[in-house]
Order: sequence, then C-alpha cells, then structure tokens
Amino acid sequence: MIKNYINKNLKNHSNRGMSFEKVINLTNQYYIDKNIAIIHKKPTPIQVVKVDYPTRSKCKITEAFYKTPSTTDYNGVYKGRYIDFEAKQINSNTSFPFQNIHIHQLSHLKQIDYHKGIAFILIHFTNLNETYLIFYSDFNLIYESYVKINKKSISYSTVKAVGYKIDLINNLYLDYLKIINLVIEKINF
Amino acid sequence: MIKNYINKNLKNHSNRGMSFEKVINLTNQYYIDKNIAIIHKKPTPIQVVKVDYPTRSKCKITEAFYKTPSTTDYNGVYKGRYIDFEAKQINSNTSFPFQNIHIHQLSHLKQIDYHKGIAFILIHFTNLNETYLIFYSDFNLIYESYVKINKKSISYSTVKAVGYKIDLINNLYLDYLKIINLVIEKINF
Repeated sequence: MIKNYINKNLKNHSNRGMSFEKVINLTNQYYIDKNIAIIHKKPTPIQVVKVDYPTRSKCKITEAFYKTPSTTDYNGVYKGRYIDFEAKQINSNTSFPFQNIHIHQLSHLKQIDYHKGIAFILIHFTNLNETYLIFYSDFNLIYESYVKINKKSISYSTVKAVGYKIDLINNLYLDYLKIINLVIEKINF
Repeated sequence: MIKNYINKNLKNHSNRGMSFEKVINLTNQYYIDKNIAIIHKKPTPIQVVKVDYPTRSKCKITEAFYKTPSTTDYNGVYKGRYIDFEAKQINSNTSFPFQNIHIHQLSHLKQIDYHKGIAFILIHFTNLNETYLIFYSDFNLIYESYVKINKKSISYSTVKAVGYKIDLINNLYLDYLKIINLVIEKINF
C-alpha cells in the first residue's frame, strides 16, 4: 500500500538523531527547491595563515584557524524581507543558558531588528526533540531584565511561553517560515 | 584654513589604489557606523580536511581548500529589504566580460530577484576609477540576449547606459545605497 510505503519512508527520514544544523540546512534546501525562500548558512569564517601551491592550478591551505563569527549563521530573503537567525541546540530539558549565544551575535540581531529585518533565534531541545522560534525583540526583553538580576538562563517554560513551537513538514523539515507568516504582514517599513 | 585641511585629508583618504573589496568593506562599515544598513561580506567558503590540536584550547587547521562560492559575496538588510550583490573589478576600459561572474552567482541573483530581494552587480573599472551598479533584472535581459548570439561581454557604454554610476562619500565610500533609494519605493511585496 502506498500509504504504508510513504509512512515508512517518512519514518526513515525522521530528523531525530540528525544534527540540528543538518536539519536546518535540509529545511533551507527544501525552501529553495519549493521556491519559497532563499536562506543559506554562511561559511564558517577562517583565518588563512599559510598557503601552498602543489600544482599551478590547485591552492592548498596548510595553516589556518577558526575565527569567532561576528554575525549569525543564517540569513536570506523571504517575500522580499530580510531574514536573519541564530540556531542553537541544547541538551538540557529545563532551560536555555545565555552562554550558548555569543554577545556579538546578540548585537548583530539587535542591529538587524533595528533595520526592520526579521531577527530570531531557533532553540532546539535535543532530548525533547522540540524546536522553538523566539523573535529577537521578545528574547531581548527577557535577556535585559534577567541580566540586571544576574539570571543566566531562560527556563523551558518561558521559552514555551514567549516562543513559537516549530512544526515539522514530512516529519523532517523545521517549518520556521510558518511562524514568520504570522508576523510578516504586521511589519511596517 | 579648515577647507584646505579637509581637502588634504580627503585626498589622503582617496580610495584610488585600494582594492575594490577593501573599499566595499569600508563602505559597509560606514553604513553600520552611521546606522544606515547592515551589510556584510560573507566569509570565503573553505573545505577543511585536517585539523590538529596543538593545545587543548587551540584548534589548528593543517589542510584545507578554497571552495567555489555558491552565492554572492555580500548580503544584508536596508530598510527591512534584503540586499544581495556581487562585486567585480576589471582592468579593461572598454568592456565587462561575462566570464568575470560565475554562472551559479547569476543563478543565485535570479533566485533573489524572484523572491523580491534587491539583487545587483557592482562593476568597478579600475583604470577609469568608476563604479557602476547594474540591477540583476537589467543585467539578465542583456546577458540572455547576448548569450543567444554568442556575445561574451558588455561594452563600457552599455554598462553606462543600463547601470547607475556610484558617487563617492568623502572621496572614499561607494554610496551604492543612494541608487537603491531610487527604486526601493517602487518594489511591491
């Protein structure tokens, strides 16, 4: 039966066990293939120190170091709007520690929000297999009030309250643009 | 006299002789500093093959290769709009050969244009010290008609006709967003 076949294949393609980054990349490719949006992961910034030319046409890097990224990992376009987000997966079932996100990534999201880009954070609770989207403006309200009282994490229940749970498409893709649709018409340029 | 002092300093800061990439990066930093837009150069994609850990905290890449970029070099947000462009400098005073731009970069710009992002190409004629912005949709009209007749470049005069010449701010920064302002209100979402 086709139904059984499809169900079996969907199950095989379940995103559980895949790295969060891989699932996001597959989702972005799905959005590209379906002509929905163009969102890419930025390459990891690398400081190249030494380069060899073993053949004339081939250039081999022999010494390099990872640099601290100054922006978020993902950006792109959806319905003309600028989309920008950082994605984090955590093992804790109870809270999201702020140390998971770099201060310069928060500064970057603040700038994006100021310029009317759509800025957010995706938080994946690995053990629960649940992913939430929190808009930067909501995240920042909590973050700034927590920092004042030296609170260093957001509880799972607060993430649930201020964030939007992401549905899966085909048991695999994280349909985060569905959440963006909820707000996109409210944004004034 | 203040006027002389300013002129002298502007002259010292002239962008002539700087690499085109450096001038664009300085321009983008100027836009960030002036709270005008957030546009960054993407890191160069690198395929890491081998990594050493000489100390526990430091990770050293010992074998890696440059990858062909699948997107353009620059993207970001301006007034909520998604901005995406490729920048090319050429030595010729008479034409811009198509071979300067990768076919997958053109595909990427086509996708961005389809999704109502603002997609364009900056062409810098090094010897003339002139820079032009050509919107992707204009570029593509010419490109597709030229490809059919096996024409492999756009003449300088055509670039002047379909493109917009970029003014400098302080004799240094390439004020490409001034051109974007001309069209931004006409884009319907």
